[in-house]
Amino acid sequence: MEKDNLTLLTDFYELTMMQGYFKNNANETVIFDMFYRNNPSGSGYAICAGLEQVIEYIKELHFDTEDIEYLRGLNLFDEDFLGYLADFRFTGDIYAIPEGTVVFPMEPLVKVIAPIMEAQLVETAILNIVNHQSLIATKASRVVYAAKGDGVMEFGLRRAQGPDAGTLGARAAVIGGCIGTSNVLCAKKFNVPALGTHAHSWIMSFEDELTAFRKYAELYPQNTTLLVDTYDTLHSGVPHAIQVFNELKEAGKKPKIYGIRLDSGDLAYLSKKARKMLDDAGYTDAVIVASSDLDEYLIDSLKTQGAAIRSWGVGTNLITSKDCPAFGGVYKLAAIKKGNGFIPKIKLSENTWKITNPGNKTIYRIYDKETGKIKADLIALADEVLSEKDPLLLFDPMATWKKLYLKPDTYTLRELLVPVFIAGECVYESPAVMDIRQNCIEELDTLWDETKRLVNPHNVYVDLSNKLFQMKNELISDMNLDK
Amino acid sequence: MEKDNLTLLTDFYELTMMQGYFKNNANETVIFDMFYRNNPSGSGYAICAGLEQVIEYIKELHFDTEDIEYLRGLNLFDEDFLGYLADFRFTGDIYAIPEGTVVFPMEPLVKVIAPIMEAQLVETAILNIVNHQSLIATKASRVVYAAKGDGVMEFGLRRAQGPDAGTLGARAAVIGGCIGTSNVLCAKKFNVPALGTHAHSWIMSFEDELTAFRKYAELYPQNTTLLVDTYDTLHSGVPHAIQVFNELKEAGKKPKIYGIRLDSGDLAYLSKKARKMLDDAGYTDAVIVASSDLDEYLIDSLKTQGAAIRSWGVGTNLITSKDCPAFGGVYKLAAIKKGNGFIPKIKLSENTWKITNPGNKTIYRIYDKETGKIKADLIALADEVLSEKDPLLLFDPMATWKKLYLKPDTYTLRELLVPVFIAGECVYESPAVMDIRQNCIEELDTLWDETKRLVNPHNVYVDLSNKLFQMKNELISDMNLDK
Repeated sequence: MEKDNLTLLTDFYELTMMQGYFKNNANETVIFDMFYRNNPSGSGYAICAGLEQVIEYIKELHFDTEDIEYLRGLNLFDEDFLGYLADFRFTGDIYAIPEGTVVFPMEPLVKVIAPIMEAQLVETAILNIVNHQSLIATKASRVVYAAKGDGVMEFGLRRAQGPDAGTLGARAAVIGGCIGTSNVLCAKKFNVPALGTHAHSWIMSFEDELTAFRKYAELYPQNTTLLVDTYDTLHSGVPHAIQVFNELKEAGKKPKIYGIRLDSGDLAYLSKKARKMLDDAGYTDAVIVASSDLDEYLIDSLKTQGAAIRSWGVGTNLITSKDCPAFGGVYKLAAIKKGNGFIPKIKLSENTWKITNPGNKTIYRIYDKETGKIKADLIALADEVLSEKDPLLLFDPMATWKKLYLKPDTYTLRELLVPVFIAGECVYESPAVMDIRQNCIEELDTLWDETKRLVNPHNVYVDLSNKLFQMKNELISDMNLDK
Repeated sequence: MEKDNLTLLTDFYELTMMQGYFKNNANETVIFDMFYRNNPSGSGYAICAGLEQVIEYIKELHFDTEDIEYLRGLNLFDEDFLGYLADFRFTGDIYAIPEGTVVFPMEPLVKVIAPIMEAQLVETAILNIVNHQSLIATKASRVVYAAKGDGVMEFGLRRAQGPDAGTLGARAAVIGGCIGTSNVLCAKKFNVPALGTHAHSWIMSFEDELTAFRKYAELYPQNTTLLVDTYDTLHSGVPHAIQVFNELKEAGKKPKIYGIRLDSGDLAYLSKKARKMLDDAGYTDAVIVASSDLDEYLIDSLKTQGAAIRSWGVGTNLITSKDCPAFGGVYKLAAIKKGNGFIPKIKLSENTWKITNPGNKTIYRIYDKETGKIKADLIALADEVLSEKDPLLLFDPMATWKKLYLKPDTYTLRELLVPVFIAGECVYESPAVMDIRQNCIEELDTLWDETKRLVNPHNVYVDLSNKLFQMKNELISDMNLDK
């Protein structure tokens, strides 16, 4: 079977517009920015993810015969345009922020510089992929933050929005900090740990719970985690688990990693009671795992209540980002090439903060030299050159009287966007997912706790360079004059 | 490129349990039910969907060499078990409710009868696929209900949770009543209408809005819908659109289908103002399309406010089922074969309504003969035979004093579950998506408006047959004695 060609994974209007540009011989090179306006789930930051799949998608872009046949059958596209599509390849440049990076609203996560027909075609898939994975990576990062160093396992495949959402979602969850996933396909494809033990049906398929536990322990002596809530957690499950641990100990076969899993009921109460029962029986190193409709707020609350849980399996609420299931990234025209330069473009809106940032842009991240924490991000024009040797005056573009003056040599600069495609050729190699995960842990270290806290976090400043700010205001004024 | 083999799209514990059954020579035939406990989004019903993809998945189930290699590398699975996997095929029976059917909580949507190792492996993918598509079909059905006969277009690909969520989600949205989708891949794969016109970037890429409109109208004279909110809806967009319609009329080229699209701002106000401007210009048949963070509640409210919108493009909130992004279907062991019969199995819970229904079951839908509306559904044991010639006494299993007596010949019966696989062979052919959609429209006609309303709907009764009810109670009593 052929792998699904994702070239048609696009909105229909991209194709009707493409034909429009084709018919008008209007295939100017343009710049589109993919950015988002609000962090999901009330977060103080987001984690960007999905670039590896964007790269695959761009590399494989082509209309095969079947695609052309289908489009011809719609009686809307002319033969000359279909001929153009048959030879279609992506020939432009793409810049992007590497996966696992901490990002903030209004920053271009992906910048596409390409003939408008190409830039338009790829809009929908880029948004789909980056929106989805950034959403789940961000959610995972919040859940992992709440778990305060305990392992968080991604367990959501059965409730994910289709196969890709399960597999690419689990990939993003690992980038955001999960230690692994129950999804075997994801584990195989992206070389991340596959995790899990057994279900209630395992217990129910044996004559009794004790036999089921014994059989499981016999089979998996390396990691014996027993699910204790099939019949009655404290009166049946935990005593039976302890009985099996006793038998193993007596036989000199006490497992290295072992414990119990709670999957229902009052996790604070049950975990404390079970902890005491395990401790009293001498199993102070038995781990209590929990997995029952968890999210960052519930884990935080359980932690506050002193729940004795040290490992968390998080399903539905993570893999769907239940409280905020869409990332809201958009893809907006920023400039059109004319001669050797770009004419900046802007989209107005009744809402001031919805007005786009025009021009060919880049993003500088400004770190405090002493602490290594992020001071602010600065969106500038691509041809501006900043130096750590110069003083830097930052101001809030929505409230320009709010200023911050940075002395020379007190800050370090990093450009966030890296080249991914140049003239249609891929110039970027995606790191392994576990390496992106490690990088993301380091990224999170550049945020103060006040930005990472779950509720009402401190927002990091994303400012505009003075040159960009002036250009934007001039464009707005010109637009108003036009009316 | 090979198509992704979805055999590893399963939770890791399914594989560890499978090896457990293998090692214990315990591969009894079992019955698992996939059912759900609550309708999503506060709905009075759900629409089941996804069966076609479940069938594809089951047909293609096999571990290829690469899968076996991967599992071997985990150092957890023995060679004899890996050998078994290499020859693995699904050999069981599957019964399911056809796609597009109205369904209610506690009813098995899918029933798997297979050796436990097979039944266990397929759990996760069946849940993933049916949960996702049933969720989106249900949400779409609500949105379409709110639109009261206006066309609803699925526009959510860019915000869907990955490529499959976009494509299979759009499929489900069409099943639930959408007239088509912006997603070209979905349109091609499932032969449903591809819809859409142009974006703000089209307007912005021309010197001015009027030129952009003229060019678009020239290209697409069959359906000329102009997006009017790029600069200023009432002062620029609508007047320019009217100017273009005037020019077309004067040239004798007035399009058959034409109108404007609003994508931001106060849709009630703008649509009424725009309607008046169009009417005053003589364009009473121009259609006003809207698309801006819509859902069933917003459409309902706009309708109540008298908004002049006759076509709706619904994106994020539909494709993610934003207010309830997971369906919550579960997969529970109901019986284990012993000799010629099945031993019923039950899972207890602190919550009475979470206790599973044991045994090999079927579902009868009971229609009122006169109105054709659903009276109730009855979950019975598979070997019970009901006849429309007999009187039928229904009772609420949670409140047994609530009874309903049906006289003979006043009702009709329909068994909801149909055979899909028998002994591993597929015996069911999935209808075309547009046919499922048509069937779903007829299905919705079997519900009273009180069940379809958006808020606080009337719940349809799902009762248990007396025989099943007795069996369940006996099993619960036995369990309690065991303690």
